[in-house]
Amino acid sequence: MAAPSPLSPLAPKKTPSPPPIPGVRFATIAAGVRYSGRTDVMLAVFDEPAAVAGVFTRSRCPSAPVDWCRDHLAQGKARALIVNSGNANAFTGAVGARAVAHVAEAASAALNVPQHEIFMASTGVIGEPLDGARIAAVIKRLGETARPEALGDAARAIMTTDTFPKVATARAVLGDVEVSINGFAKGAGMIAPDMATMLAFAFTDAPIAAPALQAMLSKSVERSFNAITVDSDTSTSDTLMLFATGAAVARGAPKIDAANDPRLAAFKRALDKVLLDLAHQVVRDGEGARKFIAIKVEGARSRKAAKRIALSIANSPLVKTAVAGEDANWGRIVMAVGKAGERAERDRLDIHFGPIRVAHNGMRDPDYDEAAASAYMKKQAIDIRVNVGVGGATAKVWTCDLTKEYVAINGDYRS
Amino acid sequence: MAAPSPLSPLAPKKTPSPPPIPGVRFATIAAGVRYSGRTDVMLAVFDEPAAVAGVFTRSRCPSAPVDWCRDHLAQGKARALIVNSGNANAFTGAVGARAVAHVAEAASAALNVPQHEIFMASTGVIGEPLDGARIAAVIKRLGETARPEALGDAARAIMTTDTFPKVATARAVLGDVEVSINGFAKGAGMIAPDMATMLAFAFTDAPIAAPALQAMLSKSVERSFNAITVDSDTSTSDTLMLFATGAAVARGAPKIDAANDPRLAAFKRALDKVLLDLAHQVVRDGEGARKFIAIKVEGARSRKAAKRIALSIANSPLVKTAVAGEDANWGRIVMAVGKAGERAERDRLDIHFGPIRVAHNGMRDPDYDEAAASAYMKKQAIDIRVNVGVGGATAKVWTCDLTKEYVAINGDYRS
Repeated sequence: MAAPSPLSPLAPKKTPSPPPIPGVRFATIAAGVRYSGRTDVMLAVFDEPAAVAGVFTRSRCPSAPVDWCRDHLAQGKARALIVNSGNANAFTGAVGARAVAHVAEAASAALNVPQHEIFMASTGVIGEPLDGARIAAVIKRLGETARPEALGDAARAIMTTDTFPKVATARAVLGDVEVSINGFAKGAGMIAPDMATMLAFAFTDAPIAAPALQAMLSKSVERSFNAITVDSDTSTSDTLMLFATGAAVARGAPKIDAANDPRLAAFKRALDKVLLDLAHQVVRDGEGARKFIAIKVEGARSRKAAKRIALSIANSPLVKTAVAGEDANWGRIVMAVGKAGERAERDRLDIHFGPIRVAHNGMRDPDYDEAAASAYMKKQAIDIRVNVGVGGATAKVWTCDLTKEYVAINGDYRS
Repeated sequence: MAAPSPLSPLAPKKTPSPPPIPGVRFATIAAGVRYSGRTDVMLAVFDEPAAVAGVFTRSRCPSAPVDWCRDHLAQGKARALIVNSGNANAFTGAVGARAVAHVAEAASAALNVPQHEIFMASTGVIGEPLDGARIAAVIKRLGETARPEALGDAARAIMTTDTFPKVATARAVLGDVEVSINGFAKGAGMIAPDMATMLAFAFTDAPIAAPALQAMLSKSVERSFNAITVDSDTSTSDTLMLFATGAAVARGAPKIDAANDPRLAAFKRALDKVLLDLAHQVVRDGEGARKFIAIKVEGARSRKAAKRIALSIANSPLVKTAVAGEDANWGRIVMAVGKAGERAERDRLDIHFGPIRVAHNGMRDPDYDEAAASAYMKKQAIDIRVNVGVGGATAKVWTCDLTKEYVAINGDYRS
């Protein structure tokens, strides 16, 4: 949609190239869905049926592939994942549903797998009919060329306004066996809690049953993808899926059925790490972003209240423009705390920018050093910490600043 | 705070100069609260105690003058209103409350009126201690120079980042007598429903008791000031007050005690007109605004649901940047409908930009003419109409576009 932007200054120094996950292979192709001269369809195909879990947009106007995935998630098995960029297949009515069915039918034949074990996601322009035939036509070829090593290519094929591919990896010991989680994501604008124009897929060789996967995924997403915001806008297409091939069984890993199995402790930490890493990369690629902002709210009545206040700060255009302007404008933080609708003790509010306490007990800190604050605000990563003086609950969320480039990317693309 | 901006292109052609309201006089002065070379304190003084009603910010961190006004509103009588610009006296703790008390004490002595019949409002920078002595020192002089004709000067004295003074007026027949309502307002950024960095004051000579005034004001604000948004940010200081001098009694107007008195019908329409006019002027002065956007949501389950959807559209940065880019991007409208959390029938959604139906029954309108839509989007006033296909309720809200100038005004002011 937007013209390609230069690499985000917040991009990680390098994209990881993790060792492959046994049991899943990837392939990509330039199918001409909308873009030319780049890959835009990716296939992940599983050698054996993988256990699958998913979390989707809470939008009341979800895309056709989101509808499809929701309908097919309950059976818990996946043989293939097909993702295209360039067209979100959202707000396309019955035509959109037919395109999804058409792709599923073609993929079922080409890959020789049941339709209901095929998952799909689409990202790109909303409201344009998706030509399912273009995707259907390439599935066979994708199936033939899929390789375990091609995860990085897959990450690139699903990009839209992203300026870098987003890959993350972690390892964990399950039983006595090392298992891996590899993930990739896309997303740059229309990013808000309750997901975003955000697609993320993670794969593990751990042998974990679908209900346990789902429970872990739903929990982990609350502190990762549901704790980031670029612009408070929630997409129709948000999809996060986790696939477990179970291939580590061959190396002696125990089969796990329940999310509360104590042997999952390390795996849960690894999953949290991968999802948070991917979520942070999405923020770091926030459209026009120049600053990565972490917001921690302490002293709230409940964790939910803390998160609501933190998101009120993170979504405030005035806070985000102040950070863009490298101003420790805590008056705008107060404003955002006040508008969140949660209890806050105005006269006990403390606000820190990094190590610098700018406000104490509801007033400017008497020892506040404006020069030190100005120096701190020149950093690329800004930590804002607010104690609202009510209770003991905390929450942390991440966002980026709001710059003229955001407006240019989202407003100038036709001119 | 920000450097003075050029006049908003959406400014009304001229500022009205309505005939004075009998019973209230205005004066302004350059007291040096923060700005230099301009007036920054205004006094409205009532010849006889006026009936008073007020609506204030729902921020959990309200300013000291908001606390004061809330505490003194119940008795329903006003002898004076003192407003300063340049300093919001918000997040100033006990020091802020003392400044308010100091001004009230000085004004009580200077004007010979009871402290609890003095109302106050402050707008400007948050978190800086307000030097109440500077305001206290000028009250006597203001009281001596106050004139019924100076309402326009008052409108100018309370401006902060506003690029034009905001004045509105209307007349109504009460009994057999013509009464008037004059109002003025300030506000440009930090404007969101549930009020804004928005101060508005209206005055009438109608003899209406305070409880009736309050009931009418609370109702009228829902469809005016609480139906506008510039940036979704809610200030600590929002204040709307309505004063009734009752001077029209001398011309034979009947005294009114109850808001449901049928003789109030014309007055209510006039009040709605003045408040909506002022609210629209605030949007027209939205920071960086180039387009005035009216959003009407139809076919919702309830009026509340319709308003929530309309505000979701109005607050979406992606919708606002698309309008700035003159793009009839209805995909972003769909996104904003979807994220509002209210019921919408995706496959029955209709979207109009002005007279042009761009989407019908959840898909791009087959007869959609992109050239016509592009031409429409070049207009300065854009109407967006969405039918969500669920019920019969409607709501209308107003906002402006999101431009690079908004970011510059709120992010560049230190650089």
